[in-house]
Amino acid sequence: MKQKIIHITGIITLGVLLTLCVPHQSEESSPNVILTSQGVSDIRNELGKLPLLDKSYDRWVKVLEDDMALGVNVPVPKDPAGGYTHNRHKQNYISMYGAGLLWQLSGDEKYAIFVKDMLLEYADMYPSLGAHPVEKSYARGKLFWQQLNEAVWLVYTSQAYDCIKSYLSEEDRKKIEADLLIPYANLLSVESTYVFNRIHNHAVWAAAGVGMAGYAMDNEEMVHRALFGIETEEHKDKPKGYYAQLDLLFSPDGYYTEGPYYQRYALLPYVLFAQAIENNNPAYKIFEYRGQILRKATLVTLQMTNTDGKFMPFNDALKDMSFRAPELINAVNIVYNEFPESKQLLSVAKAQGRVALTQAGLRVAKDLNNGEAQPFQWLSMELNDGADGKQGAVGILRADANKDAACVVMKYAQHGMGHGHFDRLGIMMYDNGNEILSDYGAARYVNVEYKHGGRYLPENKTWAKHTVAHNTVVMDKTTQFNGDYKTADKVSGEKWFFNIENEHISIMSAKENNAYGSAQAQRTVAVIKDKDLFEFPLVVDVFKIDDDKKHTYDLPFYYKGKLLYTNADYTNFTTQRGTMGDDFGYQHLWKEGQGKASTDNFQTVWFNEGRFYTMTTEAQADDEIFYTRIGANDPEFSLRNETGLLFRRSNQSSTCFASALEVHGNKNFDTELVENQVGIVKGVKTLLNNKAYTIVEIQTVKNSSIVLAISNSTNAPSEEHNMNIADKQYTWKGPYKLFKK
Amino acid sequence: MKQKIIHITGIITLGVLLTLCVPHQSEESSPNVILTSQGVSDIRNELGKLPLLDKSYDRWVKVLEDDMALGVNVPVPKDPAGGYTHNRHKQNYISMYGAGLLWQLSGDEKYAIFVKDMLLEYADMYPSLGAHPVEKSYARGKLFWQQLNEAVWLVYTSQAYDCIKSYLSEEDRKKIEADLLIPYANLLSVESTYVFNRIHNHAVWAAAGVGMAGYAMDNEEMVHRALFGIETEEHKDKPKGYYAQLDLLFSPDGYYTEGPYYQRYALLPYVLFAQAIENNNPAYKIFEYRGQILRKATLVTLQMTNTDGKFMPFNDALKDMSFRAPELINAVNIVYNEFPESKQLLSVAKAQGRVALTQAGLRVAKDLNNGEAQPFQWLSMELNDGADGKQGAVGILRADANKDAACVVMKYAQHGMGHGHFDRLGIMMYDNGNEILSDYGAARYVNVEYKHGGRYLPENKTWAKHTVAHNTVVMDKTTQFNGDYKTADKVSGEKWFFNIENEHISIMSAKENNAYGSAQAQRTVAVIKDKDLFEFPLVVDVFKIDDDKKHTYDLPFYYKGKLLYTNADYTNFTTQRGTMGDDFGYQHLWKEGQGKASTDNFQTVWFNEGRFYTMTTEAQADDEIFYTRIGANDPEFSLRNETGLLFRRSNQSSTCFASALEVHGNKNFDTELVENQVGIVKGVKTLLNNKAYTIVEIQTVKNSSIVLAISNSTNAPSEEHNMNIADKQYTWKGPYKLFKK
Repeated sequence: MKQKIIHITGIITLGVLLTLCVPHQSEESSPNVILTSQGVSDIRNELGKLPLLDKSYDRWVKVLEDDMALGVNVPVPKDPAGGYTHNRHKQNYISMYGAGLLWQLSGDEKYAIFVKDMLLEYADMYPSLGAHPVEKSYARGKLFWQQLNEAVWLVYTSQAYDCIKSYLSEEDRKKIEADLLIPYANLLSVESTYVFNRIHNHAVWAAAGVGMAGYAMDNEEMVHRALFGIETEEHKDKPKGYYAQLDLLFSPDGYYTEGPYYQRYALLPYVLFAQAIENNNPAYKIFEYRGQILRKATLVTLQMTNTDGKFMPFNDALKDMSFRAPELINAVNIVYNEFPESKQLLSVAKAQGRVALTQAGLRVAKDLNNGEAQPFQWLSMELNDGADGKQGAVGILRADANKDAACVVMKYAQHGMGHGHFDRLGIMMYDNGNEILSDYGAARYVNVEYKHGGRYLPENKTWAKHTVAHNTVVMDKTTQFNGDYKTADKVSGEKWFFNIENEHISIMSAKENNAYGSAQAQRTVAVIKDKDLFEFPLVVDVFKIDDDKKHTYDLPFYYKGKLLYTNADYTNFTTQRGTMGDDFGYQHLWKEGQGKASTDNFQTVWFNEGRFYTMTTEAQADDEIFYTRIGANDPEFSLRNETGLLFRRSNQSSTCFASALEVHGNKNFDTELVENQVGIVKGVKTLLNNKAYTIVEIQTVKNSSIVLAISNSTNAPSEEHNMNIADKQYTWKGPYKLFKK
Repeated sequence: MKQKIIHITGIITLGVLLTLCVPHQSEESSPNVILTSQGVSDIRNELGKLPLLDKSYDRWVKVLEDDMALGVNVPVPKDPAGGYTHNRHKQNYISMYGAGLLWQLSGDEKYAIFVKDMLLEYADMYPSLGAHPVEKSYARGKLFWQQLNEAVWLVYTSQAYDCIKSYLSEEDRKKIEADLLIPYANLLSVESTYVFNRIHNHAVWAAAGVGMAGYAMDNEEMVHRALFGIETEEHKDKPKGYYAQLDLLFSPDGYYTEGPYYQRYALLPYVLFAQAIENNNPAYKIFEYRGQILRKATLVTLQMTNTDGKFMPFNDALKDMSFRAPELINAVNIVYNEFPESKQLLSVAKAQGRVALTQAGLRVAKDLNNGEAQPFQWLSMELNDGADGKQGAVGILRADANKDAACVVMKYAQHGMGHGHFDRLGIMMYDNGNEILSDYGAARYVNVEYKHGGRYLPENKTWAKHTVAHNTVVMDKTTQFNGDYKTADKVSGEKWFFNIENEHISIMSAKENNAYGSAQAQRTVAVIKDKDLFEFPLVVDVFKIDDDKKHTYDLPFYYKGKLLYTNADYTNFTTQRGTMGDDFGYQHLWKEGQGKASTDNFQTVWFNEGRFYTMTTEAQADDEIFYTRIGANDPEFSLRNETGLLFRRSNQSSTCFASALEVHGNKNFDTELVENQVGIVKGVKTLLNNKAYTIVEIQTVKNSSIVLAISNSTNAPSEEHNMNIADKQYTWKGPYKLFKK
């Protein structure tokens, strides 16, 4: 495919000349932003040999075939998100970007002409544009109603320009730079310093756009602006620009506080700009910056998934989104290219089904084709939050790397800004590849016009964000922080201990001292492996909360599957149903049943995709259990009508909810045979619960039991503990201990 | 693997001698029932070469390893279904059967000893046994509470005996035959002539057991008894025995009236006994009998599945059951072996994941290994019901053979005996591999102890069987036939026309003149392909019902997916919910919402796995729509809480419900992009509805429309029809016509 280099400017007749008409390539010249001239020549060499590369290439050909058929359309901006001009300008940057790539890779001049004509039309129009007529954003653009979209346009268009730059006449280049790209980048930066200098994911897009445009135009000052922000009186000595964004928006572990659904999106400008920096200023060693923060952030995003690749739905998250999202293709390609020892990334790239048409994408396609992929390994890990890593964390315990293995996640991190939920100490659980204890995620149908135009639904605020929508304690039927996100955003949960060293038990414990007023909460979750007793790992959950005053404590569990059995003495409201309450999300819960414990424990069995789940929760005399279903006060039938259990303990100051969730048995759908449908956990009993210790016993029908001892007042690994309970001596060192009786 | 043949009787020490110890083989000797001596030698030759064969073999080794570790246990019968002795005797026949196979194929004597010891223990015990102590069946066995299980035991045990017969001493053979097999077969036949001579699937098991035992013991009389039944005064001149069962239990198309879930099970004794007949009396040409009825019955069972292999859940059916069921392994193997041109069967065998250790299974494994499998082709077909083929039918329309294509099924067959549902003219729809309009199937959790011991739930009678649980009209809120199954069982639906010849329209029409008292009903369902107008095939549904008196007509649709939009003026009962009624299944429906039409049509949009479904139903002024959810009056939370729409038309004598169900658009979960979410059907209008004709127009937003004309009083293909409606002439020949305007 490597062809003689002939540089032809101007429009020529398509025909026999076509194959001769290839872009000018020289080592120091364009393209140089993301795709490089070396990359072009390497990719050309491999086209036709690597299935994933070819598929990705063909996809762009199809995209351009469809869009170029409509001609060049550069309408005067008018519409809000979702409207014609909005969508058209979005499609334009995608098509210009794709056409730029195809011009470089195919040498078919129609692509260069398409980009050139469109850029010239933009350059004609841009100088006359005022602010976008839709006045809904704190930072309006010109093409779009908000500068976020405006910046994304520049990220793609700067690459398109870079790809056809050598094709353009000097005059056209000048016009496009002077009338379009420079003023466009200025609007996003020097004319919007407040926005540009923020430490916020929108500003990362702006930095990337401005910086990449700078590289495309060989404008060093513009790159500098992107890397370091703009010095103003107001922002003097404050962190700003891309380096500051790398420093402050990720935790040292690479966690982004809005959670994985948004981290997927936030990563893209980071990695694209980093690639541009690496290509043009390799001495900056940008991928080594802050302990390889971009590698960490990418891997962490991938780790925060269930084994089907779907993201853990913290905060505002759409539950179908997975690491197959196209936004992650560049991240996976680029990070793999820099750290090719991470062979697991190839498995993710394979699942993504295409690669970027860049040198990084080429390497992925090549190494995949060489059979170098290794299975992605989902691991247990604690992901600290906050730029300093001291603002709590997200803890992930996985029974093992098996796809079917149990996984429990707890959030004791920061709130997550405007997209955060009031879910401190909330847990989710997966097993056998399925959600078992579920988080609702966001109430939204993205891009579905029927549902409020695809925007967040009203129920996102009235239901999904509230504490009762999560698997965590609600005090006095009131959302954590009284539902005030600004207060919540200032303080985080607190790591207590996280230990995955012991082969028989993985355990995490965290505290929450702000969400419940003066009350102090601590949750400890353990995944216990004891093959003598349990077919699958056992999950033990201990939620302790203390205050001077008496409260009502509710602990909901949104279980996924079909309820089979409960041992409670309950009433099922079989002919008339009402709601669980009037506010704080309770108004969205139907009360399907209500009961009292018939023994010392509530026991509930459900079934999900072939396995049985038995939850045993210690009961006090006046405890109540509620059987709930989401969907009340939902006039447009927007919510998913999912089931839950809610345990209520009233009139208590300090208390502890202790539960064991046993996974067991199987049903074979082909034979209809059922094995091991009855679990062996008989009861859960709190032996001790005070400021210093919580000690919980899990009793089995085999007359054996296990005891989990938790130290609440010191988590020092060297601290020794010793006590006698009911004539039995418990002695251990460190924050917790598992005993077997 | 072929080894020197040395016949050793008696127990020998395991060790080096083991490899020499192989069963005696001669051409005319045992085994000869299902596995044959030729089969043994062929399979031995191929072991280690064919993955599916090896896997199937290894599975039996594992089964026996587990069960033989427990020793030989032949307890005195005592327990009902699910109890220890019941399960033990079930496992015993499986283990004896497997051990018999393994003795033949491996020559490892431990297997022969295991079967011998167990048979001798049975022979010791059997003569002293009276009737089983559980008195719940009309036909008690001795080992089991019902003779059905008793017969199944013999089907397997006769094969086990056949496999080790040549290993046994003359004395042991005599004892086993005289004290066990002969009296056992007699109990099922000559001592239970009423049961044995029935035309009923239980009697097929008995015939197969007795016949196969006859072949195993070279007892011709016993085989004759199985083939032709037992002559008694009472059954003289009446059809009885296996041949009569072949004549009368399947329709000429091979449909079994209980529906596919039970057909899967009913087939097994048929095909096993047929194989035994073919092996021992090939001159009978049993597989040619009645136009190859066993081939037809097997293929029909496979056709009555969605593209994931799950059975259409007519009548009492568990919805997870599929053609991967082990009961179908023998059927698929045996029918393929007889008709090896049916290469599609190999795909089913592949999905089943194992083969029988027989010559038939060997052939499947071999041909699969040779790459001979062809994809299974799901087809449109009308399956007539009744031994004479004149008792109505099940109609299946498939848009095409594509796995994702729409499929609509209508039941206008017989009731289905005790397992039947009151669902005349009920439809189901699949699309994109998913249920779209769903049938509830049975209310039962097979083998789940928590749910009434795995038996049918009370809700099976109070909900699942009722008409309102199905997608068909309910008159005056009363179940068809007033819920009397004996009346329903006497009469069937009536085929009107079924046409799949036209590439633009597949259509079926059926009448029901018994289920609604004096009212006469007719339903016509068409799948229309018009690429100019519709992205996917359009389903048109016309339900016409006529009576002299006025009635309330309800038409429910149990849609699967998330409701996105409805154009009705409705009230959503957001804080208090009640039920739809008090009886005939209505007591199990929550009334979530209720509304009136806002235009001439009800339009409802839902979303399922990436596609949109828009149902447009013509509305009259006083029509009501209800939004329902299954699960009221369900004190044990047993039902699945699925959603439905219910259209109600009150105070009408003759009327017609006309709907169009449009499949459109897609959502990409990786990109979140949504395409074509708004359908193009604007309205459905009945242009004419009288005794002679029903003519329905489907209008689109493109100002085009299609018109479906149905002839109600003659279905003659040659009949010409001609009429003028609103100044437009409609002229056609035959029972229906599709016009485009």
